[in-house]
Order: sequence, then C-alpha cells, then structure tokens
Amino acid sequence: MRNKPWAIDYLESNDQFVDVNNNYSKKIKEFFSKDQPLHIEVGTGMGNFITTLAENNPDINYVGIEIDKNVMIRVTEKVVDLGLENVRLVLLDANKLMDYFNENEVDKVYLNFSDPWPKNRHAKRRLTHSNFLSSYKQLLKENSIVEFKTDNRGLFEFSLISMNTYGMKFENLNLDVHDDEPETNIRTEYEEKFSQRGHKIYWIQASF
Amino acid sequence: MRNKPWAIDYLESNDQFVDVNNNYSKKIKEFFSKDQPLHIEVGTGMGNFITTLAENNPDINYVGIEIDKNVMIRVTEKVVDLGLENVRLVLLDANKLMDYFNENEVDKVYLNFSDPWPKNRHAKRRLTHSNFLSSYKQLLKENSIVEFKTDNRGLFEFSLISMNTYGMKFENLNLDVHDDEPETNIRTEYEEKFSQRGHKIYWIQASF
Ligand SMILES: C[S@@+](CC[C@H](N)C(=O)[O-])C[C@H]1O[C@@H](n2cnc3c(N)ncnc32)[C@H](O)[C@@H]1O
Ligand SMILES: C[S@@+](CC[C@H](N)C(=O)[O-])C[C@H]1O[C@@H](n2cnc3c(N)ncnc32)[C@H](O)[C@@H]1O
Repeated sequence: MRNKPWAIDYLESNDQFVDVNNNYSKKIKEFFSKDQPLHIEVGTGMGNFITTLAENNPDINYVGIEIDKNVMIRVTEKVVDLGLENVRLVLLDANKLMDYFNENEVDKVYLNFSDPWPKNRHAKRRLTHSNFLSSYKQLLKENSIVEFKTDNRGLFEFSLISMNTYGMKFENLNLDVHDDEPETNIRTEYEEKFSQRGHKIYWIQASF
Repeated sequence: MRNKPWAIDYLESNDQFVDVNNNYSKKIKEFFSKDQPLHIEVGTGMGNFITTLAENNPDINYVGIEIDKNVMIRVTEKVVDLGLENVRLVLLDANKLMDYFNENEVDKVYLNFSDPWPKNRHAKRRLTHSNFLSSYKQLLKENSIVEFKTDNRGLFEFSLISMNTYGMKFENLNLDVHDDEPETNIRTEYEEKFSQRGHKIYWIQASF
C-alpha cells in the first residue's frame, strides 16, 4: 500500500470510528453505542470481511485491528460509508493486544490471511505462534473460538501444529473452502485475489 | 478385487509369511527371526509401502494387517518374491487388533489411504475414529507415533479433528506431499493412482 502523508489526519478526522491514539485502551466497550458481545479481527486489511460481518450481525460489536495506517484508510472509508454503529477500528500492533484489551473481554477472534512469515527465524511473528495464542486466550472469555482462514499452506500447517500443541480444541476445519463454499463464508480481499489464482483456501475454528 | 477361490489355500501354503488363522495371536514376536522394534500397517492393500519400507529398514520388524484375503495374495506375493525376513502378514479385521496384539508391544502404526466411509453413520468404521485411536494407544508403547496418509480430504479433516480431540500431539504434517516430495516418501498403490488424477496427498505424524 502506497504511503499516504495525509493518512493520520484522515483517520483522526474520523475519530468516532477509529481509535488512532489508543484513547480507548482498556475501555473499548465505551467506544460503542450498544453493550453487546465483542468480536475482534486482527489484521483487518481493507475490511470487506469485518464490514460485511457487521452488517449481517447488528447484535455484535466488532473491533478491527490493523497496524498499517495506509491500509486502515480503506476499511475506515467502508465503515464511514456504511455508517456502521457496531464496528470500531484500532490502529494497533497485535503484539500490544494485552495492553489494549482487558482479560476475558472478547467473545471471538478472527484471523484472515495473516502474513505468512515463511522464514523459520520469523516464526514468532506469525499470528498463530504460541505467544499470540497466549494473548488471545487471555483476552477471550472461556471456551471462546479463534477462527482462522488462509490460502498459505505453510502457515496453515504451522498453525494446526501450533494450536494443537497449545492444547486448543479443533471444532471445525475445511481444507478447501471454495470447493463447496458455505453460504456463510465472507470472502476477504486477499481471499478473492488468491482464489482467482487457483489457491485452495484453508479454514479452522478452534477453542481454548 | 476379484474373488479368488484359491486365496486361502495359497495364503496357507505360505504360512511362514502369513498368519491366516491367527495362530500368532498374542505372540507375534515369535513369528519373526529377529527380536527388534515392531511397526504395523493397518489396511496394507497390495503392499508396495510395507515391502519397500521393510527392504530399507532391515532392523525393524513389520506386520501388515489386511482384512481381505484376495488383496492379501498380492502383498504375500511381494513378500515371498523378496524373501523378506522382517515382514509378516496377518489376515485380521482392524476391529480385532486388541485381541491379537499385547499392550505396549508396538513401536509405530501406519495407516495409508484407509477407506473413507464418507457417510456420517459409518464414522465409527474410519480407522482414525476415536475407538480405533484408543486401540492404537493401547498396543503402542508410550509416546509412539501414528502416521497417516490419504488423498481423501473429508477423511483427513475428520482425522485431524479426531486426533486433536483425543489429545494426540501433532508432530508433523503436510497438506500437499507431492508438491515437494520428500525422498523418504514411499508411494502406495492408491497414492500412485490418485496422485495421477491430480488429488493432493495429505500426511500427518501424531503421537499419544
Ligand atoms: C495479508 S494482509 C490480509 C488482510 C485481510 N485480512 C484480507 O484477508 O484481505 C495482512 C494484514 O495484517 C496486517 N498486520 C500484519 N501484522 C500485523 C500486526 N502485528 N498487527 C496488526 N496488523 C497486522 C497488515 O498490515 C495487513 O493489512
Ligand atoms: C483403500 S485401500 C488402501 C490400500 C493401501 N494402503 C494403499 O494405500 O494402496 C484400504 C485397504 O484397507 C483394507 N481394510 C479396510 N478395512 C479394514 C479393516 N477393518 N481391517 C483391516 N483392513 C481393512 C481394505 O481391504 C483395503 O485393502
């Protein structure tokens, strides 16, 4: 994504939707108009997934977490256009999740097409590394679900082993989501792109 | 496999290699000339896998378990031709494994291209159903490995969930074995056939 010098200005001018300066750290629930279950997506990207989900589920609050301000512009535009009351965006590094959320505050975590970090020495950066699983476990309520989708075979293999080793319970999985695509599947921007290139899409729901 | 009326006669005439009448039940080790680790394959089929493995690993004893006497002829012919001292075949239904083996007697279990039994009401017949996992656990030594390979996506998805739910630890897995085929991979007859049809080959090593 090309650098946009006006990114922070734009995001700050939409501070009813985006928490650029982490003002809502430890009090994210106050950022929403309604008190209802909280689902988060880490690495929201351009935001087709979270905005579609939020439109379909007005009785759930969604937080989209994205580290890149230039990417954040794209999802912010969608949230603004649709005037979504139940989506809030947070400019945050996933490594800081536990500084931002309280324990047992979240009902579900979504990860979609997370960066694969294929080199072994970068394994700790993968969003399904045990260090990240450990922070999801803390911010999630008991027995809650992490849902993860990717086209990257290496990352998915790593994630199955990582989640299994961590002791997570596999609730559901699909090794070719688009073969017989469930009506409930919401395609992300990356999913659309890589599916067109013939990649298989992998998916898992696992709980702590 | 076409029915061969002479199958039992043929197998019994090779009783130095095949235990047709389960004479070695609970004393399989006496069937081998050397006392060394014991690996078993359940649903051996035509036997390319187990015979190649046995040739490559003379310091391991292998037991091939197959329920179908007509199929058993094919693997028996291979073992006879190669004069393999470290392979013995047992005509047995996998449901009877615990009647045949002693507890903690086996060092590894292989499953290759097991029948998929796609209907939910047949789930208990799948060789990775928890009932089967429970018998593998009993006959295996502690921390031993089950290695499973298939082209059947539905069966593999089921197996990942079943093994995870049972508490098995995933040691290794590969969602496309032939993409960058390891030198150690030994293709089975079914593997060759389905790979030629473009199916992906899935593989997992998991321990108890
Ligand atoms: C490959 S893109 C996928 C985007 C979107 N989920 C999709 O499927 O179209 C990964 C996204 O995760 C974001 N990201 C990467 N590392 C992050 C981190 N540590 N914290 C928050 N977001 C991160 C990137 O900026 C990027 O937008
Ligand atoms: C699909 S074939 C695969 C054969 C071989 N492993 C391969 O990959 O080429 C499955 C084999 O398992 C055998 N089998 C099925 N159910 C079995 C059971 N309950 N006990 C023992 N063998 C069984 C079948 O007779 C058949 O030979």
